[in-house]
Amino acid sequence: MNISDSEHGRRTPRGCEPKSKSEPQSPSAPVTQMEFARAGRITAAMRAVAEREQRDVEFIRERVADGRIAIPANVVHLAKGLAPVGVGEGLSTKVNVNLGISGDRADAAEEWRKVGIAQDNGADAIMDLSNAGKTQAFRRDLIAKTPLMVGTVPMYDAIGYLEKPLVELTGDDLLRVVRTHAEDGVDFLTIHAGINRRVVETFKQTGRLMNIVSRGGSLLFGWMEVTGAENPFYERFDEVLEICHEFDVTISLGDSCRPGCLYDANDATETAEMIELGKLTRRAWDAGVQVMVEGPGHMAIDEIAATVKMQKRLCHNAPFYVLGPLVCDVGVGYDHITAAIGGAISASAGADFLCYVTPAEHLCLPDADDVLDGLIATRIAAHAADIAKGVPGARDADARMAQARRKLDWEAMWPAALDPATARARFEASPAATEGTCTMCGKMCAVRTVNKVLEGTTIDLDAS
Amino acid sequence: MNISDSEHGRRTPRGCEPKSKSEPQSPSAPVTQMEFARAGRITAAMRAVAEREQRDVEFIRERVADGRIAIPANVVHLAKGLAPVGVGEGLSTKVNVNLGISGDRADAAEEWRKVGIAQDNGADAIMDLSNAGKTQAFRRDLIAKTPLMVGTVPMYDAIGYLEKPLVELTGDDLLRVVRTHAEDGVDFLTIHAGINRRVVETFKQTGRLMNIVSRGGSLLFGWMEVTGAENPFYERFDEVLEICHEFDVTISLGDSCRPGCLYDANDATETAEMIELGKLTRRAWDAGVQVMVEGPGHMAIDEIAATVKMQKRLCHNAPFYVLGPLVCDVGVGYDHITAAIGGAISASAGADFLCYVTPAEHLCLPDADDVLDGLIATRIAAHAADIAKGVPGARDADARMAQARRKLDWEAMWPAALDPATARARFEASPAATEGTCTMCGKMCAVRTVNKVLEGTTIDLDAS
Repeated sequence: MNISDSEHGRRTPRGCEPKSKSEPQSPSAPVTQMEFARAGRITAAMRAVAEREQRDVEFIRERVADGRIAIPANVVHLAKGLAPVGVGEGLSTKVNVNLGISGDRADAAEEWRKVGIAQDNGADAIMDLSNAGKTQAFRRDLIAKTPLMVGTVPMYDAIGYLEKPLVELTGDDLLRVVRTHAEDGVDFLTIHAGINRRVVETFKQTGRLMNIVSRGGSLLFGWMEVTGAENPFYERFDEVLEICHEFDVTISLGDSCRPGCLYDANDATETAEMIELGKLTRRAWDAGVQVMVEGPGHMAIDEIAATVKMQKRLCHNAPFYVLGPLVCDVGVGYDHITAAIGGAISASAGADFLCYVTPAEHLCLPDADDVLDGLIATRIAAHAADIAKGVPGARDADARMAQARRKLDWEAMWPAALDPATARARFEASPAATEGTCTMCGKMCAVRTVNKVLEGTTIDLDAS
Repeated sequence: MNISDSEHGRRTPRGCEPKSKSEPQSPSAPVTQMEFARAGRITAAMRAVAEREQRDVEFIRERVADGRIAIPANVVHLAKGLAPVGVGEGLSTKVNVNLGISGDRADAAEEWRKVGIAQDNGADAIMDLSNAGKTQAFRRDLIAKTPLMVGTVPMYDAIGYLEKPLVELTGDDLLRVVRTHAEDGVDFLTIHAGINRRVVETFKQTGRLMNIVSRGGSLLFGWMEVTGAENPFYERFDEVLEICHEFDVTISLGDSCRPGCLYDANDATETAEMIELGKLTRRAWDAGVQVMVEGPGHMAIDEIAATVKMQKRLCHNAPFYVLGPLVCDVGVGYDHITAAIGGAISASAGADFLCYVTPAEHLCLPDADDVLDGLIATRIAAHAADIAKGVPGARDADARMAQARRKLDWEAMWPAALDPATARARFEASPAATEGTCTMCGKMCAVRTVNKVLEGTTIDLDAS
């Protein structure tokens, strides 16, 4: 099968095949989900994804084969209890929680509280962004204990784990970190391979208001500028692919040049990098490695749908993993909301995976409360998008909630809520209400009034 | 000028004029902003709106004349210090805060705290939904003290103010409440005139999951069912118009049949009422009375743009005043976020005025903290939409914020933030950061790294 022929809605005209090897060079024995899928073989992971998504397993297999769906499932984590999840076309929108030990606040207990919140409140993935202290011990523990898919950013860890100054890091060092993470069982790795010399040239020629706001991207940019060398993740991408292939690590292609403000959104630098990410996507697929592509950032509402369309075009319908986007720059202190607006719109337009943003964004490290607020805001965005996308079963909980509300049946409402505990606690703390209504409208509850009219019972609405 | 000819982008073909009187029957001396505008006369209010919106005053006058812009400014409130605001096409999206004394929690001091929060945090309007106790005293005080436009819902107050059981209320009673509110200086009145016998028939024929969730609508439905009579606000709409005309009260046509859940959105009942609201809009304009039209409610993301388009079509481009819409039913406890998503999308698509929703929605009465959370969430939605709409100056604060962030200049960030106090407090409470960065990334701050690279100074990123 020629990958370029499998692109959804687009077929490569004869004679226009990419110059690179166009036949997947998978080894004869499939290792990755993508290779199993291409070989027509259904894995337990595909079956689990199909069941969860209310889709036929062939629907899943077909899309894993051509890259439209990724199932980030490191063979090490699978053996340790990962519950595999699919990310991509036709599936429910997934939600990621970032956490991790940092040099600025190394409190492992607090990070474990965040893990608990993520697991108890419907997160699909945890990205461990630890960059200081015993990062490997935390990562290994996390992978052993959580059934959620785990992602990491090797570039962050390179600083903390290798304990070397940035400019002394070598390509070998970076590849060593990638291998360590893969061996530890990380399901998806953010690899900042897109920011190569071509992209840096465009960045320097065209300029930006906020420059480079991706941490990994900024570190690589600094390294490249000081050493004068090409980005090792780009230059040695084939070696990265070999490692990822061995453990079926999904590559999450980092968007080093994502916009850090509305002004920079969809500029030449970002778009130049997206072109590179599209090329790298093809190379990964040629090697049988699964891919997701990361996206912005900050962006005005009216640009979001076009960005998703462009990403899907340039990156051959690879799953799109979006941070935010924040739809304005001035919501600081409430950026979980700014991001939820952008997340809902981008996922409605086809983005597949949302990285949460917390109220602490742009201010400080999030605490456990922020994690809950950020997670639920992002789940609202994902869920609302799934309804718009027509994801199977997406409206079920909403229909249950509406039916419970019509009957003013509070006990039936809580299980339908995204965060039953918070909703119930708030309701129970409010002053006593009337006949099942809440204190919001009391006796003047519209639902109660209409129910009484339709039942033919007396309406007693006097405000006494 | 024939109003039907002035519809934006639509002209009435010859012979298709509405059967009703097609020439505005305004008295010779203009009373309302609309009449002044039609007479080609610029008022101080139009000038104030033009200045605030960075628009030519003729841009404003033209749209006030044909109803695309409303300036809700009761002559009584204008005399008492109202700062007039425009709502409609080409203007920034406005935000309303609901508050008021209710039978379930009559605490005037708490409501005054909410007024302060609304005024200090950028609300454009306050709706006083008081329905019990000394409603008139509170309303008069509010109008005397606040420069924000004030709206009310006579149907709520009819219950508390008249102290009569619902079914004993007469049309005269309701008109008396309307007159009282107009005399007190209310700038816009929600009038539930759209739920007439035709609409009730459609409701009964087609059914709904959540029935009628508008409080005013449910009360009128109950009254109509028990008395067998037509909705007095509909039957005596000309008398309502006379009162509104006298004080230049803007009519906010209530959407009694707005959907209370996703399932009911854009159904026959809602659409039947919207048709009536369009007819009533024309009648109001014929009488020289300004109009806004209220909208849902609960709605899936993919239906929002179509709903805004339909409202603008059926209601002749009258300003659209939207509650939410909540883009899913299961976000209870976080419905300020669910509503902010829908609000941002609907305003981007052309809605002009957003009613805030608080985290207490569907649970209990909001407290002062909820008011702030709901207001800021709604302002984020409105602001993000204004950027997408291309409202003049909408991006200015975002550009200032981005410039401050690039320089890591915290003191310059706060004035650009929508809620400077909350953002600053959170930042200052976080552990000490490094060289102007926050604790989020500390030394690994991308902005700091890139600044150092571009300045040619040493990058010190080791995580020690």
